[in-house]
Amino acid sequence: MSANVQNSIMLFGDSITQGGWEPGMNGFGANLAHRYARKLDVINRGFSGYNTEWGIPVFEQFFATREQQKDLQIVRLLIIWFGANDSCLVQSPQHVPLAKFATNLKYLVNLVQSPESQYYSPNTRIILATPPPVNTYQRKANLDARDPPLLLDRDFENTRDYAQTVKDVAHEEEVGIIDIWTKMWDAAGHDEQSLSDYLYDGLHLNGAGYQLMYDAVLETIEKTYPELHPDRLEMVFPGWGMIDPNNVVASVQKREQHLV
Amino acid sequence: MSANVQNSIMLFGDSITQGGWEPGMNGFGANLAHRYARKLDVINRGFSGYNTEWGIPVFEQFFATREQQKDLQIVRLLIIWFGANDSCLVQSPQHVPLAKFATNLKYLVNLVQSPESQYYSPNTRIILATPPPVNTYQRKANLDARDPPLLLDRDFENTRDYAQTVKDVAHEEEVGIIDIWTKMWDAAGHDEQSLSDYLYDGLHLNGAGYQLMYDAVLETIEKTYPELHPDRLEMVFPGWGMIDPNNVVASVQKREQHLV
Repeated sequence: MSANVQNSIMLFGDSITQGGWEPGMNGFGANLAHRYARKLDVINRGFSGYNTEWGIPVFEQFFATREQQKDLQIVRLLIIWFGANDSCLVQSPQHVPLAKFATNLKYLVNLVQSPESQYYSPNTRIILATPPPVNTYQRKANLDARDPPLLLDRDFENTRDYAQTVKDVAHEEEVGIIDIWTKMWDAAGHDEQSLSDYLYDGLHLNGAGYQLMYDAVLETIEKTYPELHPDRLEMVFPGWGMIDPNNVVASVQKREQHLV
Repeated sequence: MSANVQNSIMLFGDSITQGGWEPGMNGFGANLAHRYARKLDVINRGFSGYNTEWGIPVFEQFFATREQQKDLQIVRLLIIWFGANDSCLVQSPQHVPLAKFATNLKYLVNLVQSPESQYYSPNTRIILATPPPVNTYQRKANLDARDPPLLLDRDFENTRDYAQTVKDVAHEEEVGIIDIWTKMWDAAGHDEQSLSDYLYDGLHLNGAGYQLMYDAVLETIEKTYPELHPDRLEMVFPGWGMIDPNNVVASVQKREQHLV
């Protein structure tokens, strides 16, 4: 019911996406919302604990069908960020096998990009993001401290494989990629324990981690879909200095944002 | 194009609203978005520099008409927060006379609440918010330091009158009220210079100011529209612990949020 005047960026993922607005965490979602204020709304579709297997049937409920789209805002950019839960070890109910993870990501991309899909949305650009690296030292300490203590549920190398799969799928499907796994690993000097500079519990990002992600989002937008960079989008409604007090209504008319 | 699955809270106002997602500022918009994650989207419709006179024709473009509403998310709560610019002194192009300010606020409320309005939205609750008090010491220093220096454009008593008018309109129209003017004035011990604890430039809120506002929003929701308090809203899609791995699709079905 906000009418069809401002399009959006949709962030779809797990708790690392859902937590992207968390107070005091320098969340990438909140910061993107600020950067795109009056240009694109930034919508949180993060689902704590979810993997791609559970994300798909939820996506099929919240993403508009081709029929519904004509009345709704356009999702100009969809960032899909999964893998942190899919890569849980096999004993976890969150585990999704690597091949199935790849299939699920491709399925999601094709839901939006295939002209045959009922969710086909030709003006939605897609970026896949890799899961961050796991700091198993931090993660183990966190799980040990719970009551009752839990066994380690993730593994450094395994998550790396899921990150590689996201890159492979992005390459194959020719969509954008945010390789936060590599950015964070590089920033930590290729030292697993130093990942604590970017993760608060070995799995979830702290403020410095979200800063890496925010910067990486804008870098990928600039590289892959430059027309969506905030510097290239006009505000939907003009700045107040443009308003003619003698002709207010004409001077505050909505601007059409060009679709490239 | 996010389909009709998650309703929203819309924050409509000036720069103090627009800035409510600003990084490192503990913005009330970002924090509300976090608090309502997976329950209601929080939409930024803040327009820096705008007054009610300019806000109305913009509102009439972005708020859905009765006809459009049937396909769109419901704005469950609309917070209207103006007055900081309307209360500029008469020489400013942003100035709106006090009586006209009251008329404009009533007009906005009736656009949404009057069954005769083409924007009539019976499931949208409204809260009006008062402008914060002005710290003219801080504001004067800020304007003096500009190149060229600017004359003081706002006045403590005058803004207080606009705040009182917001309260009067809210009472008359029987909608919710957030009296951040009084909350901030009380918090500053009724000492104008101490308002710098809550304002970074005499006009705009700092982190402590936004914290007062965030708390006041939830307090007013609890008091006036308790059914919209985040503690009383279910998540639209269930938490991952509720998912039955043997029956995923059935267990992730969207829940209907009860409209009171």
